Amino acid sequence: MELYENERIDRLYSNEVQIIQSAEVFSFSLDAVLLAHFTSALRKENGKLVDLCAGNGAVGLFLTEKVTGQIIEVEVQDRLSDMARRSIELNNLENRVKMLNIDLNTATEFIKKDSVDIVTCNPPYFSDLPTSKKNDNPYLAIARHEISVNLERIIEVTSDLLKMNGKAYFVHRPERAAEIFELMRKHRLAPKKVQLVHPKKEKEANMILIEAIKDGRLNGIRFMPAIVVYDRSNEYTPLLKEILYGKNE
Amino acid sequence: MELYENERIDRLYSNEVQIIQSAEVFSFSLDAVLLAHFTSALRKENGKLVDLCAGNGAVGLFLTEKVTGQIIEVEVQDRLSDMARRSIELNNLENRVKMLNIDLNTATEFIKKDSVDIVTCNPPYFSDLPTSKKNDNPYLAIARHEISVNLERIIEVTSDLLKMNGKAYFVHRPERAAEIFELMRKHRLAPKKVQLVHPKKEKEANMILIEAIKDGRLNGIRFMPAIVVYDRSNEYTPLLKEILYGKNE
Repeated sequence: MELYENERIDRLYSNEVQIIQSAEVFSFSLDAVLLAHFTSALRKENGKLVDLCAGNGAVGLFLTEKVTGQIIEVEVQDRLSDMARRSIELNNLENRVKMLNIDLNTATEFIKKDSVDIVTCNPPYFSDLPTSKKNDNPYLAIARHEISVNLERIIEVTSDLLKMNGKAYFVHRPERAAEIFELMRKHRLAPKKVQLVHPKKEKEANMILIEAIKDGRLNGIRFMPAIVVYDRSNEYTPLLKEILYGKNE
Repeated sequence: MELYENERIDRLYSNEVQIIQSAEVFSFSLDAVLLAHFTSALRKENGKLVDLCAGNGAVGLFLTEKVTGQIIEVEVQDRLSDMARRSIELNNLENRVKMLNIDLNTATEFIKKDSVDIVTCNPPYFSDLPTSKKNDNPYLAIARHEISVNLERIIEVTSDLLKMNGKAYFVHRPERAAEIFELMRKHRLAPKKVQLVHPKKEKEANMILIEAIKDGRLNGIRFMPAIVVYDRSNEYTPLLKEILYGKNE
């Protein structure tokens, strides 16, 4: 496997897959790990999961352990989707994982509408307002800011792709929770399960995980036990250790 | 102070006020205690706080320690508002706390629109759907089910009463969170702060506390540290002990 300058191969200890990363271009973070952890298993021979805003493909690759069928990654940036493609090869997953290097806005031209069981997405967190300070690094800027696509459009495409009763899994910033719920509702997605992630027990949440169901009934949100990342002595909590390193380590 | 059959006088240990209760008619519960705890202090000589769906007046009475100005309790049930009135007398708070025994739908005929700094509310939790099992006890049925008023109307009245930038504090069931956020938004209230209450660390939340600001900007929800009620051995957690019994006990 050819690695470019400053690339490295990383592994999540609780997972078999290896992932090509680059601090200068894109590396997966805890958000991707927790999104994959939060996503339901899909044990169906012809099941289909689509990961939007896939970046270097980490979420889709983590999910190969939970998904029996096909995984399609969608990423607009050439450089990132190339990393993802090489990671897919590195893990010999070409028969199950596909990378589409396309603009998410055109996703329904490549993937049939109403055909997907699960859509996952770790979208850009920041609205592309003129006041928001953008990253000088263009790769990171597009990954973090709503430059090439905005949240409503992502949610709309998610809904278009999903079958009736298909599930969407998003990770985002808690401050945008009300907006997300409202946009989901507008586009036929009913939020069903929420999990908040707090850096420490006594700190505000800095991440929100949301499960929504297409054409599901509104008004049944369950708030799962909160995830706390670090304990008092700044060590990972037992739950985090289990998620990151697996059950037996 | 005259007590009727089966009434008793209770006190929250962390608070000076005494509250007339009755298991058969209405007793305050943890919801009321946590709502009062979640509500911001209002230190303003001519400040005005309105507690809607006041029941036996517990929330308003707890808040006398945090509010310098006037507190108005609104309760439609005669029997409950009579209990509240007697509790107000019992604590010699007639000059600061007033009970309005009126239908909440008519609140703006008694309290000036756009005049209130804080509205608190522990509303009926259950939609009055034909399928929902109602309580045989009519006092509890009205307190728990949306029989005399529904959630949208409560939120609308809250918004009508509040000044610009006035604050609303609600306690409700987490499953209705998306509906609450949406109704708030529809009626000019921007949710700003949320706190989830979990009976145990590893259990789903069974209560949600929401702060909203009238005419505030959307998209800034903060999810505060979760409140956990019981520890592993079914004892109150240190935080709960502090809320219930005060700091020095």
